[in-house]
Amino acid sequence: MSKNDEAPPADLLNPAKPSRATVGRLSLYLRRLELLHREGVAKVSSRLLGEALGVSDAQVRKDLAHLGALGHPGIGYAAPDLIAAIRGVLGIDRDWPTVLVGVGHLARALLRYRGFAERGFRFVALFDSDPEKIGQTLDGLLVHPLEAMPAVLAETHAELGVLTVPLEAAQGVAEALVAAGVRGVLNFTPQVLRLPPSVRVVAVDLTVQLEQLAFLVGEPTASVDE
Amino acid sequence: MSKNDEAPPADLLNPAKPSRATVGRLSLYLRRLELLHREGVAKVSSRLLGEALGVSDAQVRKDLAHLGALGHPGIGYAAPDLIAAIRGVLGIDRDWPTVLVGVGHLARALLRYRGFAERGFRFVALFDSDPEKIGQTLDGLLVHPLEAMPAVLAETHAELGVLTVPLEAAQGVAEALVAAGVRGVLNFTPQVLRLPPSVRVVAVDLTVQLEQLAFLVGEPTASVDE
Repeated sequence: MSKNDEAPPADLLNPAKPSRATVGRLSLYLRRLELLHREGVAKVSSRLLGEALGVSDAQVRKDLAHLGALGHPGIGYAAPDLIAAIRGVLGIDRDWPTVLVGVGHLARALLRYRGFAERGFRFVALFDSDPEKIGQTLDGLLVHPLEAMPAVLAETHAELGVLTVPLEAAQGVAEALVAAGVRGVLNFTPQVLRLPPSVRVVAVDLTVQLEQLAFLVGEPTASVDE
Repeated sequence: MSKNDEAPPADLLNPAKPSRATVGRLSLYLRRLELLHREGVAKVSSRLLGEALGVSDAQVRKDLAHLGALGHPGIGYAAPDLIAAIRGVLGIDRDWPTVLVGVGHLARALLRYRGFAERGFRFVALFDSDPEKIGQTLDGLLVHPLEAMPAVLAETHAELGVLTVPLEAAQGVAEALVAAGVRGVLNFTPQVLRLPPSVRVVAVDLTVQLEQLAFLVGEPTASVDE
């Protein structure tokens, strides 16, 4: 009896618990896979998947182990199977009705970001406090006043909210979203949100990425490890 | 002689080589520190620094070890010293003249993003291929034609470029930026850029963060480890 028969690797025992870093990489693999699939590639190796992203073969295989045993040694992964499996783990094999609060330039950019709809993130309503914006239609979506949140969320069953309001308004609007039933908030403001632990928050801070770039450019000899 | 006298920890031997994940967390600590400092907090503990970000004390101390020995056991870190040290490691204790190519809604949002200027990222020029946009002024910056890139970059000494063009134009524009002297590209397009290894690229893919949120909301019992 081999060692593997006695004790399966931790990833196979608990395939449904990837780390946050792994979840991020699974998103990137998915993007790459969809591109390769559109180009007619049916089988992909861990090397092909990792190289454009600067991720090692070993790391790719480790990450994909979270999906169960899909790879065939010497052949690779079937692209459509892998796409479906990653979408399943990420929870984007379903539709996510999403609302957006704060209709400025960033909101307009996000509404036209084709990647969201492709991944099942469907904007169903917009909110703003500005009387000039309320009642307007943007990309087919009506801008509602903040007071309409409970009614609109009850009707649309939106579970995710995107926050593109000014810093000062962020905490109050986030609380209103949660009170109206939202379970996850994508926070584009620099405000650190204090919400009940059952509500998930992902903060997007664009300065972090620009700082990462400055760090990389400033350290020409640095090898930055994942 | 204690063990520590014989062999300093790896972080102290090589304090200047944080991983990419650490660089990301240093940015977040910096944000938090600046907020606390503005609120009049002079000394911060690793716990205080980590808790709002969901990072453990131990991880905070490990990350900050890259800065050298700044902490005082039982007292904590002096906020101004720590702010200066992190800015130094990140390379934002200097000014980064930055150009932006592709003047759409996302560009307009980024130009008004106050966090950039606060961190020394100063937009010095804009570029677009649309004759209707060329010659316009946005937040005090002229929109130049793409052909003007070599001349404008020579004059402004911009080292970083932000790419907010359509997918199809991304590779060509990135190559033009590099030819004109840019050493780092912040890529908001879904295009995987192929550039010389000396040029640093940081890709911003907003769907990755929305997918992370969907994953977290979909797995109510998941404890997501860093």
